[in-house]
Amino acid sequence: MSQSATINRRVVLAERPVGLPNDDTLRIETAAIPTPGPGEMLLRTVYLSLDPYMRGRMSAAKSYAEPVAIGGVMTGQVVAEVVASNCEGFAKGDHVLSGSGWQDYAVSDGKGVMNLGQNPDHPSWALGILGMPGYTAYAGLLKIGEPKPGETVVVAAASGPVGATVGQIAKIKGCRVVGVAGGPEKCAHVVDVLGFDACIDHKADDFAEQLAAACPDGIDVYFENVGGKVLYGVLPLLNPFARMPVCGTASWYNLTGLPDGPDMGPVLMGTILRMKVKVEGFIIFDSFGPEVYKEFAKEMAGWLAEGRVQYTEQVVEGLEAAPAALNDLLIGKNFGKMVVKVG
Amino acid sequence: MSQSATINRRVVLAERPVGLPNDDTLRIETAAIPTPGPGEMLLRTVYLSLDPYMRGRMSAAKSYAEPVAIGGVMTGQVVAEVVASNCEGFAKGDHVLSGSGWQDYAVSDGKGVMNLGQNPDHPSWALGILGMPGYTAYAGLLKIGEPKPGETVVVAAASGPVGATVGQIAKIKGCRVVGVAGGPEKCAHVVDVLGFDACIDHKADDFAEQLAAACPDGIDVYFENVGGKVLYGVLPLLNPFARMPVCGTASWYNLTGLPDGPDMGPVLMGTILRMKVKVEGFIIFDSFGPEVYKEFAKEMAGWLAEGRVQYTEQVVEGLEAAPAALNDLLIGKNFGKMVVKVG
Repeated sequence: MSQSATINRRVVLAERPVGLPNDDTLRIETAAIPTPGPGEMLLRTVYLSLDPYMRGRMSAAKSYAEPVAIGGVMTGQVVAEVVASNCEGFAKGDHVLSGSGWQDYAVSDGKGVMNLGQNPDHPSWALGILGMPGYTAYAGLLKIGEPKPGETVVVAAASGPVGATVGQIAKIKGCRVVGVAGGPEKCAHVVDVLGFDACIDHKADDFAEQLAAACPDGIDVYFENVGGKVLYGVLPLLNPFARMPVCGTASWYNLTGLPDGPDMGPVLMGTILRMKVKVEGFIIFDSFGPEVYKEFAKEMAGWLAEGRVQYTEQVVEGLEAAPAALNDLLIGKNFGKMVVKVG
Repeated sequence: MSQSATINRRVVLAERPVGLPNDDTLRIETAAIPTPGPGEMLLRTVYLSLDPYMRGRMSAAKSYAEPVAIGGVMTGQVVAEVVASNCEGFAKGDHVLSGSGWQDYAVSDGKGVMNLGQNPDHPSWALGILGMPGYTAYAGLLKIGEPKPGETVVVAAASGPVGATVGQIAKIKGCRVVGVAGGPEKCAHVVDVLGFDACIDHKADDFAEQLAAACPDGIDVYFENVGGKVLYGVLPLLNPFARMPVCGTASWYNLTGLPDGPDMGPVLMGTILRMKVKVEGFIIFDSFGPEVYKEFAKEMAGWLAEGRVQYTEQVVEGLEAAPAALNDLLIGKNFGKMVVKVG
């Protein structure tokens, strides 16, 4: 069943997953299309963004945002078209960036909704390079990582939308950039298309040795988005006064309990102490204000126009394909920024 | 054998310890008193400072400073008296702060030596509240921790020279201050003499519950100097945008291998991410420049004169008692700042 003009499909959280989500985690329901009241508008979803943070929203554990309720529509950013509007500043035919979630239609009062205009060039880019992932890469790297020319920057998930952007910005800033990705195909893309100096396959048995060889002058900035084996390979290579912006720990998101020992806490804290490392977690829209966003939007648009930043999208067709696609993303089977073409 | 006018006793590293230092780790040797050449002076040690970092210098592991060589004199800050001087700016009878190490006499060219004058009021304080531990507390808390009035600050080793100072400065800054210390006697001192709002005994079975109860509004600043159980009790209580200056991980210094699991890495990194925590390691004289030191020296002298900061010293008699005293310090059997009265 594809998008319809009369029925609203919505993907709701059926139960909280233990480990990786499975067929029982999400459920597609249908409902009537809601009607916008005074001051409201009706949005039709065009693209839905899939992102690793969605796994966190499925859990009841304390986090930076409320979990999705059981039976509630899954959280998600979308690019939507305005179907009908009683809402000032939004007209029929406008494209918008909205937190409508995993559904065909939503009513909005315009709060927190960004108008992208009638015919944006690349509407889905608002979900990626010009949206949350691109902004995460930009602000985390430049405002926390503070890379200096000649320094070595390491980033994992290097073919993903955040990692790819981190590395390309670091190259623009004159750094040596080493990516980490899963498999030779992704690694080749990271070096050949994105222009990183090197990319190490984290599936290699001698991953830590390869990473050390690729960072002969140590590591000054590690942009942390995966945790696990990559983090533990990075720690012995950190230079004095290294910086570590933390925007995710994706390799740990589907843990059902803590990993077996030994406890790496002493290594982590000992390295932070001895090497005088700054480790700082951030949640992009909590941690940075509108002035940083404006700076990002302007600089990134310029880099894209000049061809200095490349952007790769993987487009999945149809809302019904979204649950399986999210799982692919959570186990690293995506290639570039994953978006669902809903309608 | 006490300090002599003709023989130089020195404590050298006999072998690198595994775990806690033992009777074979250090050795007392005697040698001739060295003779100062042109531009040099002879220093006679009056007080030797004992500090947890000394355990690190006994190990060959990569750290922020070179390890002590086997057969080399143990590193340490001392307050010494100038016995003879060919060195500009230093006269016979001056007291100085110097890195002479664990010995009765040393020759110095004056580099890195601070002149305390002929008759300083409390010469040993230059090793504590007015020296490295006081400065560590001041700069780490104020420059990294950035406590704001009404926030909750937690510090471990709260009766030690760093922790006691951290807490008293945090009280001056209008914070709720919760200490952690070992045993009821230390905890009573921390509350009754130092004026902390609460102090939790880390030896208590329900330590984590007691800590949570003492921090009803969560924790905004955790001054990290011990790692281990205290750190893991703090993590679930951290507030959004909490700050964690890291100046030590003393409870882990005598590990002979990593602790058994589970691996707490996911908890540490996940908390840093979700709560947007800043964790920053620092080594006081590497991380902060002379302008911060001047600010510290002036403010701390004022607070001491006004009686707003209390300072507790434990004085051990004789250089020969220093090795056992260091072990006491490493297992928390000290009370306040430990100094050895050498001569």
